[in-house]
Amino acid sequence: MNIEAFFNITYGLYIISSGDEKRNNGFIANTVFQVTAEPAQIAIACNKDNLTAQFIQNSKLFSISILKKETKPEILGLFGYQSGKDVDKFEKIEFIKGESGVPIVTEDTIAWFECELVQSFDVGTHLIFIGLILNNDLIIPDAKPLTYSYYRNVKKGKAPKNAPTYIKKEIKKEEITMEKTKYECVVCSHIYDPEVGDPDGGIEPGTAFEDIPDNWVCPVCGAGKEDFQVI
Amino acid sequence: MNIEAFFNITYGLYIISSGDEKRNNGFIANTVFQVTAEPAQIAIACNKDNLTAQFIQNSKLFSISILKKETKPEILGLFGYQSGKDVDKFEKIEFIKGESGVPIVTEDTIAWFECELVQSFDVGTHLIFIGLILNNDLIIPDAKPLTYSYYRNVKKGKAPKNAPTYIKKEIKKEEITMEKTKYECVVCSHIYDPEVGDPDGGIEPGTAFEDIPDNWVCPVCGAGKEDFQVI
Repeated sequence: MNIEAFFNITYGLYIISSGDEKRNNGFIANTVFQVTAEPAQIAIACNKDNLTAQFIQNSKLFSISILKKETKPEILGLFGYQSGKDVDKFEKIEFIKGESGVPIVTEDTIAWFECELVQSFDVGTHLIFIGLILNNDLIIPDAKPLTYSYYRNVKKGKAPKNAPTYIKKEIKKEEITMEKTKYECVVCSHIYDPEVGDPDGGIEPGTAFEDIPDNWVCPVCGAGKEDFQVI
Repeated sequence: MNIEAFFNITYGLYIISSGDEKRNNGFIANTVFQVTAEPAQIAIACNKDNLTAQFIQNSKLFSISILKKETKPEILGLFGYQSGKDVDKFEKIEFIKGESGVPIVTEDTIAWFECELVQSFDVGTHLIFIGLILNNDLIIPDAKPLTYSYYRNVKKGKAPKNAPTYIKKEIKKEEITMEKTKYECVVCSHIYDPEVGDPDGGIEPGTAFEDIPDNWVCPVCGAGKEDFQVI
């Protein structure tokens, strides 16, 4: 199997949300496509272990928020790499409630769809949910959507372990000097390479990890410096 | 329903192929996503009327070819807007046969997947097919895939009527002078606007449709000049 071939499938990045009477949850998905035009229906794929999958199955409702290209890394970190079992993600993000009562993330969102679950299919580790679109809105016309390709190639992001596109990777120890030591984010697997630095985050190429200010955060997921470890 | 919201869902463009003992067929799809990593499975959506859908259901096999950004318009026209009921598309394209015997388009292809149909789901006008990946290959490393966004915004392509993303449009007659008369391709709905011309095809802006050479072809689908009509 040639893993590189998979990276040429084109995806966007979205927040899928659902909830119950007590609370809301959501996660970052790349697997969203329209399956029929009449009526307008959208398919999404969701890991069975996701808390949101349970909310979707119980409430028969979910929403899809299309993220803009400039989406804040903190949002990707919160919804992509943290579990709703540990944190209330909706305490930290702008959202509205749709007519059905489903939560809909509006922060860094180009457009959203409010969906009623009409079918679900079991494909192994994941479920495919088919949503009938009840309502939708375009919040930011002319914005560019965040694509998985941009996230992977430019932001150096990786798929979290519950994603359909996750690829297991063994972390290799390298024999290198301290100044060249790479660190990996334990939250999102982003690698800090001193030779590259993090120019967007104000860290010049050539800066050793130890010399980065303590308030620096992971450019991919917003985790703190303390969430990095030597690789 | 805000139609513009749908245009922010990110898709690639692919050729899905299948066949029987006598012949092969394929069509352009934008609805392809990986649904599970272990085992590696891919979902595609296919209109029930497509000849290829019948081949897939009978043979339990299909292939996916990821098209490169510079894919020839003739290929998009042949596989996107013509039916295998009228033409043998595989007479006009480079392809191989996979180990299972399924046809796999290799022309203008970055990477391909040979799949065994393991599940199919009825979602109304379309079927969702789940394919277990038997083999794959990366033909052109470092190439950029053709995205639906690029096709729509840069190439001015529109979805054919069997696509999940097809949107019906009434063609309005306009009262304009002959020099400014726009023509529409009856195959793919591309509109030739004399004010814009077709610089990539050697037609300067300001050229009336009547003055275009007879060997000019539609920049989107490769149809001939005779396939255009006044709108």
